[in-house]
Amino acid sequence: MRRTFEPGVKEYRATYWRPGYTPDAEGDVVACFRVRPREGVPVEEAAAAVAAESSTGTWTEVYGQALVDLEALQGRVYGLDGDLVYIAYPASLVEPGSVPNLLSGFAGNVFGMKAVAGLRLEDLYLPPSLVRTFPGPSLGIKREREVLGVRDRPLLGGTVKPKLGLGPKEFAAVVEEALSGGLDSTKDDENLADQPFCPFRERVLRVQEAVERAEAATGEKKAHWFNVTGPDTEETLKRAAFAAEAGARAVMVDFVTLGWAGVASLRKLAGEKGLILHFHRAMHAAFTRPRDHGLDFRVLAKLARLAGADHLHVGTAVGKLEGSRDEVRERASLLRDDVTEPQGGVRFRQDWAGLAGTFPVASGGLHPGHLPQLLELLGVDSYLLFGGGTHGHPEGPRAGARAVRVGLEGLLDGKSLEESAESCPELARALEIWGGVRF
Amino acid sequence: MRRTFEPGVKEYRATYWRPGYTPDAEGDVVACFRVRPREGVPVEEAAAAVAAESSTGTWTEVYGQALVDLEALQGRVYGLDGDLVYIAYPASLVEPGSVPNLLSGFAGNVFGMKAVAGLRLEDLYLPPSLVRTFPGPSLGIKREREVLGVRDRPLLGGTVKPKLGLGPKEFAAVVEEALSGGLDSTKDDENLADQPFCPFRERVLRVQEAVERAEAATGEKKAHWFNVTGPDTEETLKRAAFAAEAGARAVMVDFVTLGWAGVASLRKLAGEKGLILHFHRAMHAAFTRPRDHGLDFRVLAKLARLAGADHLHVGTAVGKLEGSRDEVRERASLLRDDVTEPQGGVRFRQDWAGLAGTFPVASGGLHPGHLPQLLELLGVDSYLLFGGGTHGHPEGPRAGARAVRVGLEGLLDGKSLEESAESCPELARALEIWGGVRF
Repeated sequence: MRRTFEPGVKEYRATYWRPGYTPDAEGDVVACFRVRPREGVPVEEAAAAVAAESSTGTWTEVYGQALVDLEALQGRVYGLDGDLVYIAYPASLVEPGSVPNLLSGFAGNVFGMKAVAGLRLEDLYLPPSLVRTFPGPSLGIKREREVLGVRDRPLLGGTVKPKLGLGPKEFAAVVEEALSGGLDSTKDDENLADQPFCPFRERVLRVQEAVERAEAATGEKKAHWFNVTGPDTEETLKRAAFAAEAGARAVMVDFVTLGWAGVASLRKLAGEKGLILHFHRAMHAAFTRPRDHGLDFRVLAKLARLAGADHLHVGTAVGKLEGSRDEVRERASLLRDDVTEPQGGVRFRQDWAGLAGTFPVASGGLHPGHLPQLLELLGVDSYLLFGGGTHGHPEGPRAGARAVRVGLEGLLDGKSLEESAESCPELARALEIWGGVRF
Repeated sequence: MRRTFEPGVKEYRATYWRPGYTPDAEGDVVACFRVRPREGVPVEEAAAAVAAESSTGTWTEVYGQALVDLEALQGRVYGLDGDLVYIAYPASLVEPGSVPNLLSGFAGNVFGMKAVAGLRLEDLYLPPSLVRTFPGPSLGIKREREVLGVRDRPLLGGTVKPKLGLGPKEFAAVVEEALSGGLDSTKDDENLADQPFCPFRERVLRVQEAVERAEAATGEKKAHWFNVTGPDTEETLKRAAFAAEAGARAVMVDFVTLGWAGVASLRKLAGEKGLILHFHRAMHAAFTRPRDHGLDFRVLAKLARLAGADHLHVGTAVGKLEGSRDEVRERASLLRDDVTEPQGGVRFRQDWAGLAGTFPVASGGLHPGHLPQLLELLGVDSYLLFGGGTHGHPEGPRAGARAVRVGLEGLLDGKSLEESAESCPELARALEIWGGVRF
């Protein structure tokens, strides 16, 4: 056998540390990582190990290197800024249109390498030519507004509560109350799927009837997001098709636990059936919450828009789940804007190459008293969900929904919540019971 | 509207903290969490918040509670042990056979709750009646041994290196060398999918020819694991079917980045086609590595066996990726044993209800010098992968594979590596070049 390579172990930085390199906005994927190197490992070497593992390297020189031009495919560490490192990868490393491949490549083995004690993917830039290989939202903000006939205010939703336990009949009764009271939509909770206490198909049929009764009663367009998250892709698609057949305008998916390949399949079906696709992010915080490891949620938000989310939860800053005000704002920009400019933790200017926009959703421990802060934080192009804050109203969900809707419309007309509450006893009651709730 | 519930906000522990409760091994899912409560929150209240969010609760009392018997469906915090808390959930909360639902329920929103500063799912017990709703491995250890004709030693594999860059022809040449030298199998790397530099279908055809040439040359059964991880489920299944059609015995999937619904669909196809299913765990360490947040890998290992992994990477303890010796041993027990007894971080006795066993795979920075430790750690029912440790051999992959195979067979015959190296210059050379490599 020919001996055409120099065997042995080299330092990664000899190959992958390229401080003079300028990334190519048209041809490179660029990652910003926060790196905590293992004790005794220089940060350049730890970063170079990451670049190697995500491109052409392994821990030893290998025979096959002689067979190929590795230079053209290697990752390059080109910048260091405190504990932040910047790595450019040729986009030709990536399979077009594949979130699984993007993650396996740039957010895969690297988190388990001994060269790092902690590693966090802070931001990920994709060139427009790669962005265009993803479908993006099926409807997007503009077309969803047309479907629901809501032009100039945030959309209002409410997760049905209690989370689990209601049978299809009781569940539908709660939906009808909440929609009739003024919400635009209701939704399943993330852990409601097809359990014996509330079978999916019976739930769809009964709830869809409730939606239509509420539409008839209010003269408005209404929707319920049915959680189609199933054990496998085929069953998930069957559920979505069943919901569409029954007249549903929207379905919901637990995109992290279902997984990206199933989500991509569902996105295709949603496009064919004209379904709005709501992304619930259950489990994301297992890897987005630690500050020195995992992925920042902004990376997940970018991937969700690429993959076709019409809605994505972005945190509330004011409710029961984590997420600061600045984080919520920058996530909204990543979801809605044609071009996202660097801001806060957003390190790269991202051109969305014409993909439609995704509604940022605020949810989790919200009540009408939060409305002024939510409006200021997320603006009009947002989806605000009041689950407990609707269904926990002392007079029931219809009153809870009315409190939310009247409060919101008043604010947009320049009236404070207290002013609106003067002519809306349901709102007065809601402010009284929850006014002091803080998380 | 009837007013049938007591509105307002209650402490979670009033409902979900049940220290007298004894979990039902036949009817309860039981979780062990490591909890770091938010400052000022007692651990019982933080644990009760987790139990509520994963079952019937929300942050406020709600109207719908009056419509249903919540008692029968609620989570119960029944044990505290330092920062470990034990919660029992009725199995009827879960959709049978659905990993996405299990995770959305018990490993979903809870990681983002403000009531906790850190939360780690340490172990998850499933009653046998629930275990039986999952398929488990399609072949499992025993049937795979029959297929490959290897009875009484660890199986030997090697990931083709460099990770990315080889075209189909060069790739197939490396496969043929490694298999002819003595490996049982070779595999794609986790970030190799269907990129232009190495199109999937051409790779399958060329590599499968190489596999068959190596079989003819050695008289042994060989395999290459083709990475079928695609952008969506349909394409993933098409790739697996294409590989099966071409004669492949095995395929590989990046199960974390593809996602559970796609994996379940692939498991069905693998069963129909008789394909061995190799699970690569790229991205797992984003949420399994921190010690105070996320999921312990043992939970992922359990889910992988349920979902149908014939092979799963478990760490090496001695190579380039993390994982201690005790962790690697307990993971192997979770994958292979009929009943896993509590040990180390395994908190629950788990009856596998007759599911087949999964090969634990050691991979990442291994070379022949690691063989004695690997044998002692994982025993004979294991799969040992030497990527760089095969392809980095100074005389090329054939010599590298021979060094591994001769070293292993010698050890099983009672000979030390050094003794075997006396009559095997390839092994002597490997020990010389890598003997001093530590990670």
